[in-house]
Amino acid sequence: MKRSNRLVALTNYFLENPRLHKQLPYFVNRLETTKASVSEDMDIIDAVFRNEGLGYLQRTTGAGGGVKYIPEYLHEKSEAFIHEMCHQLADPVRILPGGYLYMSDLLGNPKTVREIGRVFASAFSQMEIDVVVTVATKGIPLAYSVASFLDVPVVIVRRDPKVTEGSSVSINYVSGSSRKIQTMVLPKRSLEEGANVCIIDDFMKAGGTITGMINLLEEFNAQVKAIGVLAEADDEEEERVVENYTSLIKISNVDLKAKSIEVHPGNFVEIGDRK
Amino acid sequence: MKRSNRLVALTNYFLENPRLHKQLPYFVNRLETTKASVSEDMDIIDAVFRNEGLGYLQRTTGAGGGVKYIPEYLHEKSEAFIHEMCHQLADPVRILPGGYLYMSDLLGNPKTVREIGRVFASAFSQMEIDVVVTVATKGIPLAYSVASFLDVPVVIVRRDPKVTEGSSVSINYVSGSSRKIQTMVLPKRSLEEGANVCIIDDFMKAGGTITGMINLLEEFNAQVKAIGVLAEADDEEEERVVENYTSLIKISNVDLKAKSIEVHPGNFVEIGDRK
Repeated sequence: MKRSNRLVALTNYFLENPRLHKQLPYFVNRLETTKASVSEDMDIIDAVFRNEGLGYLQRTTGAGGGVKYIPEYLHEKSEAFIHEMCHQLADPVRILPGGYLYMSDLLGNPKTVREIGRVFASAFSQMEIDVVVTVATKGIPLAYSVASFLDVPVVIVRRDPKVTEGSSVSINYVSGSSRKIQTMVLPKRSLEEGANVCIIDDFMKAGGTITGMINLLEEFNAQVKAIGVLAEADDEEEERVVENYTSLIKISNVDLKAKSIEVHPGNFVEIGDRK
Repeated sequence: MKRSNRLVALTNYFLENPRLHKQLPYFVNRLETTKASVSEDMDIIDAVFRNEGLGYLQRTTGAGGGVKYIPEYLHEKSEAFIHEMCHQLADPVRILPGGYLYMSDLLGNPKTVREIGRVFASAFSQMEIDVVVTVATKGIPLAYSVASFLDVPVVIVRRDPKVTEGSSVSINYVSGSSRKIQTMVLPKRSLEEGANVCIIDDFMKAGGTITGMINLLEEFNAQVKAIGVLAEADDEEEERVVENYTSLIKISNVDLKAKSIEVHPGNFVEIGDRK
């Protein structure tokens, strides 16, 4: 295979297999070339990925050494994307009864969902996460997107047990926004004991749902390493019950009568600036 | 930019933007090169994509001409993937009460989900689909995966209306498996009148849920162009109420007592062979 063809094939391979460690002989065989040539190919790919702010190739030498692609978005790229989302969400026609915001169009766009996942996965890149956990329904696409960049599985907490998932662990919790007692269920088979978990959800008000998830995950002795929410409602009347989360967007001062709303970047941007 | 760097940047661009039409000047500007060079780059990328069975670059000439990447998996690659899934699902420990099959581990793996989406998107590649529709919960990741390769949005039918989605259209239907009356809801804002729709779901027994979706979509004057289900239960006692669907896997002769099960490729393989 010629260098030009190898570069296309290798770029495709790395993008399709983030964080998968492979030893050099794998590529030497697959591309029918030499170790030196593959190594030069990787220099080129690494340079372009870094230059475009897409991440980098992590290479290790010695016995068992090899390469894996770490997809880490440049912080400036993440910030630009968040500002663009804020701009789209700030439209007052999005205001719904109850002070909610219509976001289904953004969450229904696979490209937007992919970008959101990339931003969270970049923020949590160094946290050695084993599994992404979300709660049905709207967090699901976001969770899969984050998980695809972290190369880990997704586990979905449900509000109702399903016969197709076998025996389950369930807890009751008080929803922050509705003050109602709700149930959360996780099938026993779905999560290994002691896993390092990243929680992903689309929206957080007081944080009752996420607290419920944390309590349910304690039953599996899981370690919650990171919490990511797309949008948080900044409601001064209610005290936040969750700490140490990362939000991309903050919604405040929703005024149903005046049809006005404020949408700002979430604490993701501040966290990045502190680094 | 040198050719080697351009090839990496362009390959990344096409993989991230399937089916997006762009005119050549866009790339000439972005890569700071000439039309002739970009054209040669695309020849190389097209050849490698075809050779690896990943699809092709569709190029048009004349005014408004340009290029887009069509991700179409080679039929043989799809078949190999389906056979591998059958092999994994045929394990009798997966049998659950009621004759269901535990598939949450496969559906929780973002790479598997991505491959399933690629297989469906390849099968429906020529159908000019505007939107992928699924029903909560397990069909959601599959629907996003299909939609990402078709470059269209996802709309999620829910079983319960949510305040965060505004006014909705709902229908009642009889579930094929439980014979219970159930409800399906789709927010009015979520789907344009007369859209060409692809329905995606994870599992089909008699087809009651999919019939319900078809009926609900009629309220939006939508055209159902394609129906894809990951697994269908081949139950001879029940007559199938849905026709013209594509299944990847067929599950039959589930014997709870003997702990035995048969898993075969679905009609996707037959449809491909008839072509």
